Amino acid sequence: MGQVAVIGVGMTKFGKFPDRSVEDLGREACWAAIQDAGIDPRAIQAAFCGHIYQGSVAGQRVLVELGLTGIPIYNIENACASSSSGMELGCLGILSGQWDVVLAFGAEKLYGKIKGAIAPDESDIEGDLGIVAPAFWAMRARRHMHQYGTTPEMLAQVSVQNRRNACLNPSAQYRKAVTVEEVLSSRLIADPLHLLDCCPIGDGAAAAILVSDRVVRQYTTRPVWVSGIAVSSGSLESGTSDCTFEDLTDRAAKQAYHRAGIGPEDVNVAEIHNCFTIAEIVRSESLGLIPRGEGGHWVTEGKTAIKGKIPINPSGGLIAKGHPVGATGVAQVAEIVWHLRGEAGDRQVEGAKVGLTHNRGGIVGGTEGGACCVTILKR
Amino acid sequence: MGQVAVIGVGMTKFGKFPDRSVEDLGREACWAAIQDAGIDPRAIQAAFCGHIYQGSVAGQRVLVELGLTGIPIYNIENACASSSSGMELGCLGILSGQWDVVLAFGAEKLYGKIKGAIAPDESDIEGDLGIVAPAFWAMRARRHMHQYGTTPEMLAQVSVQNRRNACLNPSAQYRKAVTVEEVLSSRLIADPLHLLDCCPIGDGAAAAILVSDRVVRQYTTRPVWVSGIAVSSGSLESGTSDCTFEDLTDRAAKQAYHRAGIGPEDVNVAEIHNCFTIAEIVRSESLGLIPRGEGGHWVTEGKTAIKGKIPINPSGGLIAKGHPVGATGVAQVAEIVWHLRGEAGDRQVEGAKVGLTHNRGGIVGGTEGGACCVTILKR
Repeated sequence: MGQVAVIGVGMTKFGKFPDRSVEDLGREACWAAIQDAGIDPRAIQAAFCGHIYQGSVAGQRVLVELGLTGIPIYNIENACASSSSGMELGCLGILSGQWDVVLAFGAEKLYGKIKGAIAPDESDIEGDLGIVAPAFWAMRARRHMHQYGTTPEMLAQVSVQNRRNACLNPSAQYRKAVTVEEVLSSRLIADPLHLLDCCPIGDGAAAAILVSDRVVRQYTTRPVWVSGIAVSSGSLESGTSDCTFEDLTDRAAKQAYHRAGIGPEDVNVAEIHNCFTIAEIVRSESLGLIPRGEGGHWVTEGKTAIKGKIPINPSGGLIAKGHPVGATGVAQVAEIVWHLRGEAGDRQVEGAKVGLTHNRGGIVGGTEGGACCVTILKR
Repeated sequence: MGQVAVIGVGMTKFGKFPDRSVEDLGREACWAAIQDAGIDPRAIQAAFCGHIYQGSVAGQRVLVELGLTGIPIYNIENACASSSSGMELGCLGILSGQWDVVLAFGAEKLYGKIKGAIAPDESDIEGDLGIVAPAFWAMRARRHMHQYGTTPEMLAQVSVQNRRNACLNPSAQYRKAVTVEEVLSSRLIADPLHLLDCCPIGDGAAAAILVSDRVVRQYTTRPVWVSGIAVSSGSLESGTSDCTFEDLTDRAAKQAYHRAGIGPEDVNVAEIHNCFTIAEIVRSESLGLIPRGEGGHWVTEGKTAIKGKIPINPSGGLIAKGHPVGATGVAQVAEIVWHLRGEAGDRQVEGAKVGLTHNRGGIVGGTEGGACCVTILKR
């Protein structure tokens, strides 16, 4: 594609903010993106808000606080992949010629709304029977261990690395380094996953300003291009096929790579939806960034560290940066934009020219249906 | 625009279906649209589901029942204008060149989830103070009466006409004619609005198949064209300006007319978001279909009846056909498509060549922020 550019990004700190409303969080992130882009907010022609728990027309409620009214505003609910799905739709609207400047954001407050694991939908029979996310991922971890020799220590190492990275990220929810032993001795959630193998719930928001190639030169001389973006859902077969692999991640990735004209070997930095340590391994492999079965070994060998062969989740990922559901997808994009611009501070991946984000949500009919969005960004 | 066509539509009966799931209702409507279009469901490349109360990834949960997996699926939440907003995004995706065949649908179960008026959002201070939808509309009715001499009898006549039309619509929730006296003697909800001035809650689903002009001839020789479609939100000023007029309806309508290259005088039939009798009057005027202030007079004079000057809500509208929130926008499109094809049975508007739908949702910050989608359809 190559005709949509990101010219500004922003995010709030992720964390627990009992005294702040979702409108307040959303406004901060959107304003930060607007300032980063250096645009007059009145240039924005449409907006997409990703969220899942924020009530009716949450996007409009956020934007009215910025005086952004009149324009089309859409609320996109695709579970944990809500704001990335909205961003993709914003890109399509730009590519259609309808708009030149679009705001894509996500805003979520989870504290006070949910506790512990996200509850299954009422029609989710498997969820009612106990196969909620941690249980589902525990089974996948067991299978990965059986099939590839992955160990609990390797899983723990994913947490160690993400938490180490988050210490370098001022916006992260948890900025405390841990050891493999601490992960393994934390409370058992669903064997073999411990508390520190799981992402927390959180509050936060993130935003990005997208523009067409028709107008980009008015705003910046250093755009980051959305060179490939794709959304997929899971196939019916995914529940019965190899659960160490994600068909919908594979499908979205192949489309995004194809549109960008690159392969996984060209990616310099990736933000991956690591709601659990095992998820980072399964998804890095499904994206083609790591050979099948080697994810646990690679993290243990430092190959996915900031200075490694393919840096994964320099932000600290969902595990340590946090996971305010609707905000996560666009926050990943913000992180990659900062790396491509050389503005990622102490966690900078040196010389990064191509970045990837992977955002994933929802379980449907016992399979991992939902939505997956993969984005390739280039400077 | 003129490059997107509707080639198939379908809907469930609207009503109270305690024994049916939203997946079941959605599947029925989508399958009806697929059959109406005469397409292989595997031709569908993306889907948009409008809903507000159906939990996470509801669209994916509906479509997995049809075997429609793998493709991008988006859940759109724009309050009562959810499925029309989704349809507009589907059109933009087609116009971008990304897809040629898109499914837009809405599905909602309200019975068992809400009771009476839809509750205000937690951040809606005015709502908490009592300005919920019926109260808001009662004040607008009072102002319209004061300003233009509209009477409670004229409001009641809107209900009488919609309920009469619904008697001709097998899919309508309420198919019982009423008199002006019956409306006026029904329970007072918010003076001057009585129970029969208000739309009911309901369960139901509706779907439409959209295709590009690049492929339309493969499927049909009699497409209905989406000749203009636009989404807007309300402006900050709308709460302080004349409440007998809707700025966001006006804004969306002007854009849709402009894109279609027509004016309101060219419209032969309209489905308008009449959640209350006064809403039909205010919105018909805001759309330019009726001169300002004359809505009450026109309905009393029969000018908005099926055989009148500008037939409004031949389906029975939200008041009598029903209002399963997420389904309403696409159900309006289905109704107009049937009229343009001459397939609307006993309620057919003879010779209709241009139809309009108006779908509207949400209150933000005490103003009518939310979303409005206006669509112009042509055969």
